Amino acid sequence: MEEAKKLQKARQRVWEIVEAAKPGDKASRVFDLFMFALIVLNVAAVIVGSVKSVEATYGHQLQLFETFSVAVFTVEYLARLWACVCRPEFARSAMGRLRFALRPMQIIDLLAILPFYLEFLPIDARFVRIFRLFRLLRLAKLNRYSKTSQMLARVFASRKEELVITASVMIVTLILASSFIYFAENEAQPDKFPDIPSAMWWAIVTLTTVGYGDVYPVTTLGKFLAATIAVLGIGLFALPAGILGASFVEEIERQKAGKQHCPHCGEELE
Amino acid sequence: MEEAKKLQKARQRVWEIVEAAKPGDKASRVFDLFMFALIVLNVAAVIVGSVKSVEATYGHQLQLFETFSVAVFTVEYLARLWACVCRPEFARSAMGRLRFALRPMQIIDLLAILPFYLEFLPIDARFVRIFRLFRLLRLAKLNRYSKTSQMLARVFASRKEELVITASVMIVTLILASSFIYFAENEAQPDKFPDIPSAMWWAIVTLTTVGYGDVYPVTTLGKFLAATIAVLGIGLFALPAGILGASFVEEIERQKAGKQHCPHCGEELE
Amino acid sequence: MEEAKKLQKARQRVWEIVEAAKPGDKASRVFDLFMFALIVLNVAAVIVGSVKSVEATYGHQLQLFETFSVAVFTVEYLARLWACVCRPEFARSAMGRLRFALRPMQIIDLLAILPFYLEFLPIDARFVRIFRLFRLLRLAKLNRYSKTSQMLARVFASRKEELVITASVMIVTLILASSFIYFAENEAQPDKFPDIPSAMWWAIVTLTTVGYGDVYPVTTLGKFLAATIAVLGIGLFALPAGILGASFVEEIERQKAGKQHCPHCGEELE
Amino acid sequence: MEEAKKLQKARQRVWEIVEAAKPGDKASRVFDLFMFALIVLNVAAVIVGSVKSVEATYGHQLQLFETFSVAVFTVEYLARLWACVCRPEFARSAMGRLRFALRPMQIIDLLAILPFYLEFLPIDARFVRIFRLFRLLRLAKLNRYSKTSQMLARVFASRKEELVITASVMIVTLILASSFIYFAENEAQPDKFPDIPSAMWWAIVTLTTVGYGDVYPVTTLGKFLAATIAVLGIGLFALPAGILGASFVEEIERQKAGKQHCPHCGEELE
Repeated sequence: MEEAKKLQKARQRVWEIVEAAKPGDKASRVFDLFMFALIVLNVAAVIVGSVKSVEATYGHQLQLFETFSVAVFTVEYLARLWACVCRPEFARSAMGRLRFALRPMQIIDLLAILPFYLEFLPIDARFVRIFRLFRLLRLAKLNRYSKTSQMLARVFASRKEELVITASVMIVTLILASSFIYFAENEAQPDKFPDIPSAMWWAIVTLTTVGYGDVYPVTTLGKFLAATIAVLGIGLFALPAGILGASFVEEIERQKAGKQHCPHCGEELE
Repeated sequence: MEEAKKLQKARQRVWEIVEAAKPGDKASRVFDLFMFALIVLNVAAVIVGSVKSVEATYGHQLQLFETFSVAVFTVEYLARLWACVCRPEFARSAMGRLRFALRPMQIIDLLAILPFYLEFLPIDARFVRIFRLFRLLRLAKLNRYSKTSQMLARVFASRKEELVITASVMIVTLILASSFIYFAENEAQPDKFPDIPSAMWWAIVTLTTVGYGDVYPVTTLGKFLAATIAVLGIGLFALPAGILGASFVEEIERQKAGKQHCPHCGEELE
Repeated sequence: MEEAKKLQKARQRVWEIVEAAKPGDKASRVFDLFMFALIVLNVAAVIVGSVKSVEATYGHQLQLFETFSVAVFTVEYLARLWACVCRPEFARSAMGRLRFALRPMQIIDLLAILPFYLEFLPIDARFVRIFRLFRLLRLAKLNRYSKTSQMLARVFASRKEELVITASVMIVTLILASSFIYFAENEAQPDKFPDIPSAMWWAIVTLTTVGYGDVYPVTTLGKFLAATIAVLGIGLFALPAGILGASFVEEIERQKAGKQHCPHCGEELE
Repeated sequence: MEEAKKLQKARQRVWEIVEAAKPGDKASRVFDLFMFALIVLNVAAVIVGSVKSVEATYGHQLQLFETFSVAVFTVEYLARLWACVCRPEFARSAMGRLRFALRPMQIIDLLAILPFYLEFLPIDARFVRIFRLFRLLRLAKLNRYSKTSQMLARVFASRKEELVITASVMIVTLILASSFIYFAENEAQPDKFPDIPSAMWWAIVTLTTVGYGDVYPVTTLGKFLAATIAVLGIGLFALPAGILGASFVEEIERQKAGKQHCPHCGEELE
């Protein structure tokens, strides 16, 4: 009985440290800082490790660091899985843990460490390394970044309707633009515009105004169509950015305005 | 007499299903879903059918699907034409039907199926396939999309004045820009800037900031003019996008604010 | 006496027709329409006349049309110069006319017809033709367009302060960006970045996001500097467009709101 | 005693002239104008001096002008250093002057003249010349520009939160984008995408929509990833510009609204 209570208390404590911190919890803050540093160093290791000369010289050290990181992340992953049952929503030990493990953030965490253990399988080594970058997304979960992540999520949610509408119109525009240019250019440049899906690459490069210059119309009809598509369509592809931008500023303003302060001590209230 | 009444009732019913649905009409909703799926599959068929390897392997199946689709679209087109007289505005059987058939959306529908029947004519086969993409525009007529289409139309209508003004200034800018660059570059690059219409291609590619890099000024004067044109003109070409974007967001906000709810059941009112 | 009065009346009438119309003045409206058509046709003639094959086939007709146009524009220019003294501000016959002739719009009009008379001088023929495009700017003076021109002028005037500030910051950015990239790339690409003025071409092409791809950094330092310049500077070059766009929409809204209607007939008042 | 008072008065006067002017101080205004002209001419000299043909012809004159400028800037720098002790915050002669000299603007001023004295050291001559451009930043200190500089600083400060958040999300996007494209393209184009840092150059060129065309994906997976990254990420990279733009306009509006006028003379108050 005594034992069980102790265990539950330990679980509660572990949960507080790795997942939901109470304000002023020192252990949790140290853990957060450590994880932040580890993630940043990990991402840096993946990036510089992709440079061949660095890999040749420091490959061994990077491998050691990777092993250490995966060990930490694995322990942390298991700790969370072990402790999650202290929350009422994941209370039932087996089913609760499974439901917890299937949350998107947990899956990302698993994907970020799993490749290390699968390395003996015949998978492309680079592919494995890319997955390590999922660790980057873990930053979103740290207490210091969770507010920002939540705000971004709110911004997207509040403009869902606009985004769905613009996305639909963008898809229709993309299909029509690439079909028309395919029709106009296919004969003159069969290697550049062999089919409509290839023409979509041109359409996206043009409508986002990136314009690499690897494909562009050369016939008079193609140029005329491309000019029309560019003038009419570019605005459309710039819409989502404008909508999210305005919403983003609005949301921050609302947050600033809504911050309440304690009438006694003047401190900002959550 | 009884017969005529029955016929009219059938017409009314067909009209409700294919064109204007009452809320909660199950047959109409099933029809909408079916048409939606058919249109999406049709567009997908046109896109993947343009890929040579797909055409070679699945050409026959795609052809069968096309025949089936055109059959459905033809029946649906005729059904609408037959049923439209139940509406007071198209009541007179011959003239009413003609006026109905000449509405833009009906013409687009006709264009989307007609090529199939004209295939034996000596027309470019790719050209025929492009017309099939007009079916995409039919999505705008489905009940689930008609509100969005109406909103987009309202946004354009409410900013008509701004768009006309900016379009005029854009055309003047385009003409001046391409004339100046033609004057500056024609001698140095007679193949790239042979005449003003060709210089317009450069001007649009530059003013929309696409910048493929197929044509660009090389003389000092040309570069100076191009730099000036770019700095001053690009903003102008970005204006319509900004104007429509702001109007678009405004319109959705207005719609959200203006949504009225029934005081008795709390349901949203149309 | 009688004669002088008649002359003054004629002057007044000519002035009304060619310059400031009273609403409902039919002759003035016909004149405006005629000038509009003539200007548009003139500009079209310059554009298509630059195409060599058109010039070869229709060169003679285009030349005839040009002669006719210049005749009309010359008569109109002289008519305005003759009639302007009916206005109190240009009342004194010689000095008033000179002051009228020195107004920017009059100088543009003169520049648009003068080249025709100077053709026997040893000037580049293309250069002469470009000047004919100044006729395009005359559209701004037609009654139907004068409101738009005035509105555009107001928009620029109301944001003068913002534009001056952003222009200053843009110039400083441009100088720093091109100097830094010159320093980084001059050695590696002495032909692409031979001096700072040449690097400015790169800077403008990059900061406006046109990105032709004729010049780009290849050294690591150059790429790092270019990336930093792009991320920080592009927003700056997009500012004027955003500022003018917002002001433009505001101005039109103000105009819509401010339109007064006659309480008796409901007609819109000027 | 008398001497010391005189010295202090001289210091005070020198300080007023070179640094903080009282309104209506003629000497200070003349000094400002002179410095403005000298800085602009200096920058122009650096720019045109980088052109080889100009350097060959006018190299000697430019060198003389540079020597003269450095002399003036040195005298002015020392004058400020000598006079700063008249301000209470830099009152203690040695420590106060040191603290004054370590202010960012003073360091920039030093960097702008120091290279001249270090020319005999084996440093790259071009590198030295670039530092001379720091003089450009001195414009920000002139009285006529200090308000603008302060406003820009305020705009950045008021949007600090937004900028930090978007910058974080931009960095995460940049890392993920370059890693994904590296994974997709490394095998097909090992020279263009040799490692993730190189892929970052592609990512920035794409996400800012510059699109030089020196690197672009060629594999189907790479094109698909690039299209997705472009459509989703470009808006993100346009956000800071939009945020700062809106804030900038707001700030100027606030300043216009907040300008107070003396109730007695109607003059604008500072």
